[in-house]
Amino acid sequence: MKLREIGEDRLLAQLLPALSRNNSVVLGAGDDCAVVRGPKRGHLQLLKTDCIVEGIHFAPATDPASVGWKAMARPLSDFAAMSGLPQFALVTMVVPAVKTLTWIKAVYRGLERAARAFDVVIVGGETSAIRGPAVISVSLTGSVEGDRWVGRSGGKANDELFVTGRLGGSLPDRHLKFTPRIEESRWLTKHFSIHAMMDLSDGLGADLPRLAKASGVGFELDEAVLPLNPGCTTKQAISDGEDYELLFAISARDSVNLQRKWRRRFPKLPLTPIGRLASSFDTRHSKLTPGYVHFQKR
Amino acid sequence: MKLREIGEDRLLAQLLPALSRNNSVVLGAGDDCAVVRGPKRGHLQLLKTDCIVEGIHFAPATDPASVGWKAMARPLSDFAAMSGLPQFALVTMVVPAVKTLTWIKAVYRGLERAARAFDVVIVGGETSAIRGPAVISVSLTGSVEGDRWVGRSGGKANDELFVTGRLGGSLPDRHLKFTPRIEESRWLTKHFSIHAMMDLSDGLGADLPRLAKASGVGFELDEAVLPLNPGCTTKQAISDGEDYELLFAISARDSVNLQRKWRRRFPKLPLTPIGRLASSFDTRHSKLTPGYVHFQKR
Repeated sequence: MKLREIGEDRLLAQLLPALSRNNSVVLGAGDDCAVVRGPKRGHLQLLKTDCIVEGIHFAPATDPASVGWKAMARPLSDFAAMSGLPQFALVTMVVPAVKTLTWIKAVYRGLERAARAFDVVIVGGETSAIRGPAVISVSLTGSVEGDRWVGRSGGKANDELFVTGRLGGSLPDRHLKFTPRIEESRWLTKHFSIHAMMDLSDGLGADLPRLAKASGVGFELDEAVLPLNPGCTTKQAISDGEDYELLFAISARDSVNLQRKWRRRFPKLPLTPIGRLASSFDTRHSKLTPGYVHFQKR
Repeated sequence: MKLREIGEDRLLAQLLPALSRNNSVVLGAGDDCAVVRGPKRGHLQLLKTDCIVEGIHFAPATDPASVGWKAMARPLSDFAAMSGLPQFALVTMVVPAVKTLTWIKAVYRGLERAARAFDVVIVGGETSAIRGPAVISVSLTGSVEGDRWVGRSGGKANDELFVTGRLGGSLPDRHLKFTPRIEESRWLTKHFSIHAMMDLSDGLGADLPRLAKASGVGFELDEAVLPLNPGCTTKQAISDGEDYELLFAISARDSVNLQRKWRRRFPKLPLTPIGRLASSFDTRHSKLTPGYVHFQKR
């Protein structure tokens, strides 16, 4: 079977159960970050790796500083999804020999700018050659309070679903310049009990079913109320992907209070109730246009 | 300037000084692992990322389980270089859509086998597509006692230089099946004061000058005594690379005792004194055949 016939979720589902675990691992592969026990009481360690590939996540002609920003911002967005505080980054650059030093330095400038913006220190840098497209891989370590980390699996039937910001139309530009929602996520878990959360990287249509599935529930999506980026259709908001906004589930009884406090704290960033989790597993599931799925034919 | 005209050391030398640092960083990019302060008193955290690329570090037809072993064993070897204990791994696989699920699963089997052999848990797995060769990136976190970590920069003039095992001829097979010297390294720092250490990935001819330069000293190499793999020439032992043996510097007064104790503890693995660090920076430097240098023309 070829990869393009599988899709990333099914691929990982085949690979991950074979991995060994031990008592230090709170949450292994399959969520936004791995969660492991660290030596500091009351705190957990978060680990995340992510990569971007030329020709897939950016074009050869893309501004290299934006490439660097995106490479760092993507795993930062996964930290936001868990309400974690990132601390250290390791960077691997795999670059064809035809790239210029100027290009690489500009990528590093973008990496470093994104790192500094979130108090992250790049502590390791590796390079390798490749006879093919450039690949930039970033690994992050950091921490989260044991009572504040949020995974995908804690959603409950009747929870209200929210998204931050606006969705759709991340190409040509927004996917390179987004802001990881770490500040917003930290505020959320400081003031509210967030049941489940993730960042929207593959599009609501692919990511919402993942959150619901991890929580063992179904969902209902009010497509008519989705917060759209200017010029976007609802279909784009569901399918385009690379929004890097937060999707989260919270008890319906917190909904009004949350929206009121949010408007005061983040007046410029919309927070939109887009539906709810439902008791039956596959309610409305099939109505969703699928979002971006790695490897699969569109 | 194109990358192939630069070489990895000069490239990193251009990139790394621009990176920010803070008080948590004991040792940033440029050594085998990054060393950062963790929350556990007396212990430091080690971070390392490394990747292997199809067509550079392995061939398309290479046994995929061996590819996985190598991808995990390389950063483990960097932990050995610092005398660290690895704990968690993150794996990123960037694979062209034509690869089969069978191939990926076999790579994962190799990754997992190497991880288990050194008590490492794979806690995160990412995949991405690429229109080009496969790339497998592994990041490791772990720890080391604050009084036992070893970098490259502590070597002193007149220190004796040792290598473990035998050198040269790592192609076609040995570069896929080597054993990271973590056990040996942990034993070394438990019983001796090791001044400087690194693993030999690019060949003694490239790596020994790096260790000497980091320590601010020169070196003398007794080429005639190099421990050669069967069928290898001295030139190969210096230039082939991918030996993944330890190179370290220790006070000459510990030399006899070290060799005696080593033979008792590791009777099957040679430990060979191959020269010494010297006071002047570039003594004998120029006599070395260069080892493998990424990006550079040979």
